[in-house]
Amino acid sequence: MAASLPYPTPDPDPTQDFQMPKGTLLYAQSGGVTAVINATASAVIQAARARKVRVLAARNGILGALREELIDTSTMSAAQVKALAHTPGGAFGSCRLKLKSLDADRAKYERLLDVFRAHDVRWFLYNGGNDSADTALKVSQLAAEYDYPLTCVGVPKTIDNDLAVTDCCPGFGSAAKYTAVSVREAALDVAAMSETSTKVFVYEAMGRHAGWLAAAAGLAGDGRNDAPQIILFPERAYDEAAFLAQVVVVVKRVGWCLVVASEGIRDADGRFVADAGGGKDSFGHTQLGGVAAHLAGRVKDVLGHKVHWTLPDYLQRSARHIASKTDLEQAMAVGRKAVEFALAGKNSVMPVIVRTSDSPYRWSVEAAPLTKVANHEKTMPAGFIRKDGFGITAAARRYLQPLIAGEAYPPFGRNGLPDYVVLDQATIRRTLPRWDA
Amino acid sequence: MAASLPYPTPDPDPTQDFQMPKGTLLYAQSGGVTAVINATASAVIQAARARKVRVLAARNGILGALREELIDTSTMSAAQVKALAHTPGGAFGSCRLKLKSLDADRAKYERLLDVFRAHDVRWFLYNGGNDSADTALKVSQLAAEYDYPLTCVGVPKTIDNDLAVTDCCPGFGSAAKYTAVSVREAALDVAAMSETSTKVFVYEAMGRHAGWLAAAAGLAGDGRNDAPQIILFPERAYDEAAFLAQVVVVVKRVGWCLVVASEGIRDADGRFVADAGGGKDSFGHTQLGGVAAHLAGRVKDVLGHKVHWTLPDYLQRSARHIASKTDLEQAMAVGRKAVEFALAGKNSVMPVIVRTSDSPYRWSVEAAPLTKVANHEKTMPAGFIRKDGFGITAAARRYLQPLIAGEAYPPFGRNGLPDYVVLDQATIRRTLPRWDA
Repeated sequence: MAASLPYPTPDPDPTQDFQMPKGTLLYAQSGGVTAVINATASAVIQAARARKVRVLAARNGILGALREELIDTSTMSAAQVKALAHTPGGAFGSCRLKLKSLDADRAKYERLLDVFRAHDVRWFLYNGGNDSADTALKVSQLAAEYDYPLTCVGVPKTIDNDLAVTDCCPGFGSAAKYTAVSVREAALDVAAMSETSTKVFVYEAMGRHAGWLAAAAGLAGDGRNDAPQIILFPERAYDEAAFLAQVVVVVKRVGWCLVVASEGIRDADGRFVADAGGGKDSFGHTQLGGVAAHLAGRVKDVLGHKVHWTLPDYLQRSARHIASKTDLEQAMAVGRKAVEFALAGKNSVMPVIVRTSDSPYRWSVEAAPLTKVANHEKTMPAGFIRKDGFGITAAARRYLQPLIAGEAYPPFGRNGLPDYVVLDQATIRRTLPRWDA
Repeated sequence: MAASLPYPTPDPDPTQDFQMPKGTLLYAQSGGVTAVINATASAVIQAARARKVRVLAARNGILGALREELIDTSTMSAAQVKALAHTPGGAFGSCRLKLKSLDADRAKYERLLDVFRAHDVRWFLYNGGNDSADTALKVSQLAAEYDYPLTCVGVPKTIDNDLAVTDCCPGFGSAAKYTAVSVREAALDVAAMSETSTKVFVYEAMGRHAGWLAAAAGLAGDGRNDAPQIILFPERAYDEAAFLAQVVVVVKRVGWCLVVASEGIRDADGRFVADAGGGKDSFGHTQLGGVAAHLAGRVKDVLGHKVHWTLPDYLQRSARHIASKTDLEQAMAVGRKAVEFALAGKNSVMPVIVRTSDSPYRWSVEAAPLTKVANHEKTMPAGFIRKDGFGITAAARRYLQPLIAGEAYPPFGRNGLPDYVVLDQATIRRTLPRWDA
């Protein structure tokens, strides 16, 4: 085209980019980490780089923003950014810190604005669950109050799958796949041993208020005798007698029984079953318990069966080696969209997953107002839990199945271990006075 | 060649096979199952089929042989046999049943011979650990005493890696890989959360008498600050004060601490730390504990840190999805060799792994006398444990590293789950009177 112009056009100056928006994008990770939150970070950095926007990452979530502990992602190589997408954990550090209302925590919010001003932060992306959506919303309200031009975007993440509006939460699908695969594998073990050894196996799934991960275990089998034969949901009151009676029925029919229990199950009076522990051991020391240990103990004491139980704990949310491809794609999609929304000035929104079809599974990412997400908690629909309370329905399967579909293995080294990237987290020079959170 | 003969040779009769050895090969699985014991079974069946030898599998190990509950593997399709190689658990059922001496359990041994006679069993392959090697040895002695022509071969299997003579045990490498990968992943989680949440994480590894799996966790990191910063071995007396002091040192230096504890650690008086539990909860119920729960409780009580812990239990030995390729290859190699040894009449032997080079890793399979394997237990060499008792040495790394090398993913279905095969375990018609074990 240039050749047809009447005069030669100058080569573009590579040191200048007229499309570069002014300002800095601040990204931070919050709450319990997942197998794919770093994939979201990877997508955020890649999308911002493509638009020549500088990205700072707060160290340890909002805490790093308060402390002015900021990591300059421009020092990361393209390979490091790419490797983030297959690395579990929270590469920039996360935190559990819920800010109170604007008035109650005004000093903190004002400090945040000081830090944002000092580094010309114009876009703030907070990657987390309910509390983080709430924080992002409040920061945007404060910025408006102080006339500071800031676009706040909440980026969804939680293995608990309990965020409102979004059809599912990045991080859940991978934890769900870990759960379903682990339960299927353990079931084959218990089945093989049951004649002379373990008859009942209890698997404790994360989920203090919502039974999504326990439900995902239900994908491990479909037939009447398939494990898990019993699932206990926090959405249903735990009734010990009914539970033990069901174990008896299953062991009689199948020869063994695999129980999946949500850590958050409560009795009819609302007391957490996990708190039934907290006793003392034979040396008078505090004994930490948990739901699975308690249930296994009851099965052993009352029914006399040999029991085993597992508490996967953090393993279930960091198992990047068995991540769901669907989950990974969604985690990256919300990261890209978050940058797009932010740069387009869409304030106080969250990119959410919208499901348009179960089978074939189709989804898109749309913007939802943070006000609709923050401080809401999505529990399992009643229609997802079987009438007897011990399993999932076909509707639950239709919902859950696509979320664990596809494998997305990390690359492995010759040493047999995944090639996970660890960032050095060096922070840039502080410009403001020290601040102790 | 036929054309050059002075007269035409007849086509071989496809219904006849002159190379078919007479008799039946009986295969059985014993003890705790692994991610790859079915791979050994798959190799046994394939090797026997190639030599036109009929394979019966005892249901639930030696118990099925006693009960005359025998599965005819010739009804399995080639695809099923192949799929066995990527299916965890024990497809024919396993058992925990240790036979006593020939004199003490003579009735059982004679019953075994009756069953062997009834089904023309000429080769007996028992796939298990120490106890199974002992059983195979005793059965061979009995057969000799009764002049019954039988070749007994023990086939090694155990995630505990505690069999004598063999350099390593099929099943261990995959559990070791699961352990190292899980610890590396959990470490990234804890590192991200440590500023405001969990500071100490405790991982409980299987291994009642030998610390092999706990040692394998050491592969998760190599640097001074890498997890696991503390490993507790059953080969060293557990000293609570020294342990807690080390946690303090690590948390101060690293900011957090990941502890891997073998379930079998004992104090200086030889008492299992796991037995420190067994107390009562606040409702007066038996509280099941475990080493990780105990250690986490002590760290919480004495040091005041927020703790999390995990008890992977059966997940670590059934995790075929993260099996070691090396382990899988060895599991199949010992299966093939067991058939070869058996048909060659090598009695009372076990195919064992012989390591000929660490790097590049090279190994072969040789025959070892069962007398050298049975009832011996291989603990970790002292030179594999660091002087301070809290980690592994370079020698341990050289030994362990090759065992977790390579990935061997099972095929996954479109539903996001591994395509594991489940056999129906139908048994052939009994010819002897019923027998109750």
